[in-house]
Amino acid sequence: MTDPDVREAIMEATYEALCEHGYTDLTAQDIADRTDKSKSLLFYHYDSKDDLVADLLAYLRERFDEGIKTTRTVAPTTRLAMFIDWYLYGSSGEDERRSFHTALLELRTQAPHNERYREQLQRSDEQLRTTLEGILQDGIDAGEFVDHDTAETAALLLAALDGARTRQLAFNRDEYLSQVRSGVITQVIDDLLADDASFPSEIQQELFGSAPDEASADGESAADENRDEDDAHDDDA
Amino acid sequence: MTDPDVREAIMEATYEALCEHGYTDLTAQDIADRTDKSKSLLFYHYDSKDDLVADLLAYLRERFDEGIKTTRTVAPTTRLAMFIDWYLYGSSGEDERRSFHTALLELRTQAPHNERYREQLQRSDEQLRTTLEGILQDGIDAGEFVDHDTAETAALLLAALDGARTRQLAFNRDEYLSQVRSGVITQVIDDLLADDASFPSEIQQELFGSAPDEASADGESAADENRDEDDAHDDDA
Repeated sequence: MTDPDVREAIMEATYEALCEHGYTDLTAQDIADRTDKSKSLLFYHYDSKDDLVADLLAYLRERFDEGIKTTRTVAPTTRLAMFIDWYLYGSSGEDERRSFHTALLELRTQAPHNERYREQLQRSDEQLRTTLEGILQDGIDAGEFVDHDTAETAALLLAALDGARTRQLAFNRDEYLSQVRSGVITQVIDDLLADDASFPSEIQQELFGSAPDEASADGESAADENRDEDDAHDDDA
Repeated sequence: MTDPDVREAIMEATYEALCEHGYTDLTAQDIADRTDKSKSLLFYHYDSKDDLVADLLAYLRERFDEGIKTTRTVAPTTRLAMFIDWYLYGSSGEDERRSFHTALLELRTQAPHNERYREQLQRSDEQLRTTLEGILQDGIDAGEFVDHDTAETAALLLAALDGARTRQLAFNRDEYLSQVRSGVITQVIDDLLADDASFPSEIQQELFGSAPDEASADGESAADENRDEDDAHDDDA
């Protein structure tokens, strides 16, 4: 895979086809149909459907890293709020978020038996924990958070957000998102704030993964601008 | 289904076959092989594999309720510790725990598309939240916990424990269990304890779901006695 534009077109097509068909029913033809390439040209670049989906996970990590870079100047408390709301509510509209994460549940279910997916998902897990630990450490350094075990807090936050999203999707119980968001903020994060620090109360919609020129650094909502963009995929395991 | 003994034998067989084969590869023959019944007699009682698995989820809820009843006289803080350690570590040994919860991940992945599983898993979710809320409310009434929003705390705890277990299984990262256990206790529960209350620090192995005469009410470990019992299945979604 040499041409980045070709890869990007194939990855966008893979993402869209995965959202529409889910993982189990996804075919290479579904992906080819969303590009100007034939299925045989697709298989010139990729060996199999699994190869395409595994590279999608890598691609989404790269996009996430690009999104993260645009938030470097944002206050750590605001960055943490952005992370939480991106994780729970996504940046691509509720239908697409549901479709994508339902497909990710399928991939995750494959992971115990599929070394390749497991390795990709482990890297995504590592990326998310490292990101959270970095935000928390930056907050400690900036005097916004008290000193604490950032690895433990990152694992706790990620587990809670993950459980909320999975239980919302699998059991169709939307209250998990708002209850866990509120619980995480009032029962976990508030205790970590330095005396003169505060945590943004409104939902942060100018989420990680937005295009650089759309990432707002002031903590104000940019929901309308971002919701319809197709370049703001959720990257997660 | 009239004879409880027949149902229990079929349910035990379904549980064992599910642990061994996972959900996707499970066949009615795998279940029949573990009973003294033929496959055709199995289908006299149940319409399909889905029918068997859905009844297993109901059966596990009934077992969980029986286990819960045996802990009514245990102090609420100890009951909460028992719930957390049962959820994270199970009561049936690590291999069986992994096998069963990997199969449950498969069922959960079916839930968005399969109304019957979704309904069963929603009931299990409701049972777990109700149990946690009850423990927290009992603790408030007994002066062990300060007054707080028990529904929010129950959702937060369940999401965090669920995320820890799922991420441990799917990404093969055992640290999730110990980090989230520690984080939940020190960052969530400790703040809810009344001034003179304390939380058991050691892992509680005399878990929910044990046979009544094995449930210990003093908070001491009964791991060795319980680990090999086959009547202590994890019930969860």
